[in-house]
Amino acid sequence: MAEDSLAPLRWQGAQLAVLDQRALPEREHWIACRSAADVADAIATMAVRGAPAIGLAGAYGLALAAAAGENLDAAAGRLHAARPTAVHLAWALAAMRPPGGATDAASMAARAQQLHREDAAINRRMAERGAALLPPHSRVMTHCNTGALATGGWGTALGVIRIAHAQGRIAEVLAGETRPWRQGARLTAWELGQAGVPCRIIADGAAAWAMQRLRPSWVLVGADRIAANGDTANKIGTYALAVQARALGLKLMVVAPLATIDWTLTDGAGIPIEERAASELAPAGARAWNPVFDVTPAHLIDAIVTEAGVVRAPDRQRLAALRPTTGAAS
Amino acid sequence: MAEDSLAPLRWQGAQLAVLDQRALPEREHWIACRSAADVADAIATMAVRGAPAIGLAGAYGLALAAAAGENLDAAAGRLHAARPTAVHLAWALAAMRPPGGATDAASMAARAQQLHREDAAINRRMAERGAALLPPHSRVMTHCNTGALATGGWGTALGVIRIAHAQGRIAEVLAGETRPWRQGARLTAWELGQAGVPCRIIADGAAAWAMQRLRPSWVLVGADRIAANGDTANKIGTYALAVQARALGLKLMVVAPLATIDWTLTDGAGIPIEERAASELAPAGARAWNPVFDVTPAHLIDAIVTEAGVVRAPDRQRLAALRPTTGAAS
Repeated sequence: MAEDSLAPLRWQGAQLAVLDQRALPEREHWIACRSAADVADAIATMAVRGAPAIGLAGAYGLALAAAAGENLDAAAGRLHAARPTAVHLAWALAAMRPPGGATDAASMAARAQQLHREDAAINRRMAERGAALLPPHSRVMTHCNTGALATGGWGTALGVIRIAHAQGRIAEVLAGETRPWRQGARLTAWELGQAGVPCRIIADGAAAWAMQRLRPSWVLVGADRIAANGDTANKIGTYALAVQARALGLKLMVVAPLATIDWTLTDGAGIPIEERAASELAPAGARAWNPVFDVTPAHLIDAIVTEAGVVRAPDRQRLAALRPTTGAAS
Repeated sequence: MAEDSLAPLRWQGAQLAVLDQRALPEREHWIACRSAADVADAIATMAVRGAPAIGLAGAYGLALAAAAGENLDAAAGRLHAARPTAVHLAWALAAMRPPGGATDAASMAARAQQLHREDAAINRRMAERGAALLPPHSRVMTHCNTGALATGGWGTALGVIRIAHAQGRIAEVLAGETRPWRQGARLTAWELGQAGVPCRIIADGAAAWAMQRLRPSWVLVGADRIAANGDTANKIGTYALAVQARALGLKLMVVAPLATIDWTLTDGAGIPIEERAASELAPAGARAWNPVFDVTPAHLIDAIVTEAGVVRAPDRQRLAALRPTTGAAS
């Protein structure tokens, strides 16, 4: 299968080029980030989005801070504050400064590029594992964008779908529009179109009716943060899909790298949920409640797919088998 | 309480002025409909929307056809074809030509105006009945727009909310955005703002999470067609709200005039569901599945409120008590 041409981040030595995903699919516009502050701004304003991609952007931002001789603690703090829900950002910022590791500009840049390569490789492994769960000629549903644009390459849930399509397992993808930013309608439909995967966009409010009438076998989503018991924070709307899927006997798959699991949280109640401005949703002068993530309880999830293994019917004990310090899983 | 200044239809003798709801709340633009064809176009293109309002628009359209000496069967056929799901349009077109009734222009115009006045009066009666079901200081949720703009005046579900607010029963309304046309964000928030009722807009994908976190006591919606067993077609997204409300133990109220009940249909499977163009939802070149209504099974509805009475836990037998030919209900 072809490699991705859709990489949302390009390291150019003295700067990070960020594909402005707010302008897609109409325009391909790149933003030149020359400092950690520039990168933090690109994350906060959603020029770059998707938990793994913002983690990698943060890593490159720290490399830019090192090159500028900035205080790395301060730069990491600023980057970390750009968006609160995804734990991948915090994980990547920590991975950029391993105990005893060099923090000169060249070492930091090399480390960010290494994380970037590893993320793409992890996604390929997850995609193979997830695709194996799908029956032939499936109609599936997805939400938001979890493709190459959201990651270091290939994608998480959308990576599963792409490989599964190549294996003859995908007849059609139903892609939720994903208000307010419309990542599904703008980005997922575009990525699937480029990959030749049949796709129809549905309004978020139509997802339940689509499940009832069109019976997708699986709903596949990514994750921004997974608690130690399997409770999963993901793009707003995921919880609704989970409740509906369970009501109809359809299955829900969460595809996310191990770095998405926040082992410090016993359950989803501790996950900070970002609320964004009313202006993203409401006409001028009107009020809105605009949480951009929700938490799906683990008992509604049929499988969590990671690079280290698949956990079916996730709970604290089954998920713990994946924990790196406690040994590798199947 | 003040009368409505938001009437979406104004009969002006030789023409029907239609408030273009696609331009609200930014602009107040009126369309002059001088023929049945003009009215059919205003309905099909959603300049006027809401089941009772399109029924009344159809009635006025038939009055315009009578004034122009058009064949009334042909004009009624054209108006009826403008939108398929709401039964109110077919009902109003039939009510305009009662057996043995005069069909001269003046009689037809008088009849349309009479239907218009009756709809507003019916809505006031439904509003009183529905409001009585709400506990004090409730947070409630609604979907799409069911206010004065959707009806001959006052509104159905939103009429309940307005009277309930005046009675101290409403602390806050959560209004679903309602993609793809955003009737909730544009019209409901505007009407509630004018009425001084606190309101926050939520993305359709956030409704389930809002129910889980903010615990509205009731979800109130209108209806486009109700089958004889209580299965209810309404704006896409209603079915999702019904499943979620039941999962969390919250209650669902459908507010609709008796004319919304299609006694010829034994259940919701026979209700035609309008699918609109992909361009309402998808970027150019992308495909979409864009049904604009869905069907909520009666067993998920806690109360159907009509002008003739409230039916709790609706089913075929309980709903039949409201049927005009079988006698009045409580």
